[in-house]
Amino acid sequence: MKILLIGASGTIGHAVAAALTHGHEIVSVSRTTTPLRVDIASHESIMAMLRQAGPVDAVICTTGAARFKPMAQLEDDDFAFSIENKLMGQVNVIRTALNTVRDGGSITVTSGILAHTPSAGSGAISLVNAGLEGFMRAAALEAPRGIRVNAVSPPWVSETLKQMGMDPGIGLPAAEVAHAYVRAVEGGMTGEVIEV
Amino acid sequence: MKILLIGASGTIGHAVAAALTHGHEIVSVSRTTTPLRVDIASHESIMAMLRQAGPVDAVICTTGAARFKPMAQLEDDDFAFSIENKLMGQVNVIRTALNTVRDGGSITVTSGILAHTPSAGSGAISLVNAGLEGFMRAAALEAPRGIRVNAVSPPWVSETLKQMGMDPGIGLPAAEVAHAYVRAVEGGMTGEVIEV
Repeated sequence: MKILLIGASGTIGHAVAAALTHGHEIVSVSRTTTPLRVDIASHESIMAMLRQAGPVDAVICTTGAARFKPMAQLEDDDFAFSIENKLMGQVNVIRTALNTVRDGGSITVTSGILAHTPSAGSGAISLVNAGLEGFMRAAALEAPRGIRVNAVSPPWVSETLKQMGMDPGIGLPAAEVAHAYVRAVEGGMTGEVIEV
Repeated sequence: MKILLIGASGTIGHAVAAALTHGHEIVSVSRTTTPLRVDIASHESIMAMLRQAGPVDAVICTTGAARFKPMAQLEDDDFAFSIENKLMGQVNVIRTALNTVRDGGSITVTSGILAHTPSAGSGAISLVNAGLEGFMRAAALEAPRGIRVNAVSPPWVSETLKQMGMDPGIGLPAAEVAHAYVRAVEGGMTGEVIEV
């Protein structure tokens, strides 16, 4: 399969690329470090990038920013930024890819455990992750040409926790998280939140 | 209890007011037809209205608009409108009411069945309903002073179906939906999606 991987330069993206090398052609996309680039906060940028990429069998998105702050410190701009980036960015990846992915292909986006199990500080992220899952289910229901749409919901990732100076042991290594994306691409499910 | 009911002029709002008359003082709020008014798409309007209302024991929101359209016809503006109104409108009601509701009080908002069971045309609404539930869970976790936060998730309402020229039999009468709001206000739960 020809697989477009948006977020290829990130921690999860790297691991997904490594897990999908056998029998697949990976087209890497990121904001700044790959030949094919995208700013997922811009619907136009997503449309231009998918046009440039041409027909693919699968689109995976492992990127999207959102703000983590105590509820009392979250400002209007934190919600606007998080909605524009991780939520509408991935919603627009799905909307656009529904027109460009080959018949019987798949689209896989990334939500996260905070959708259903909040932590103190996760207000904007819990909104974004849960909203993305809600949209994904609706998109799967209306997807044309046998296209499947799913979301992977990763827990905290060990490598990220380490970067943040936290205990990596409470998370899961990115290589294990990557298996869920392989299942989404190579399996037959649609409209599912794949919890890792 | 003194209960602020936002959306008092709507189908569900009317039924909730009727169900809560015994032993409670209801302060009705709507966009145009009550003495106390609010435009929930405006954070400033919500803050001004809650300031004007003064301390209350509970805030209930039964209002919020979102667009229902086939996936292929949903435009950027449909998402922006739905997010600004039903999603961020109710998120901002929660954020503001966390500062104004009395100790041990409650905040109850309205999501809907499409959050988890989409219909063709529900893309924007499924996003909004699920996103609101995600935020509600996070807000309940961080709520100060013993304030409880919940969401009622109504099915299709018979009266609304009738207005739309559809079979009211596939829905539930608003009077039955209203019981869930009574449970949210008078019960002890927090962080829950109350399915009717």
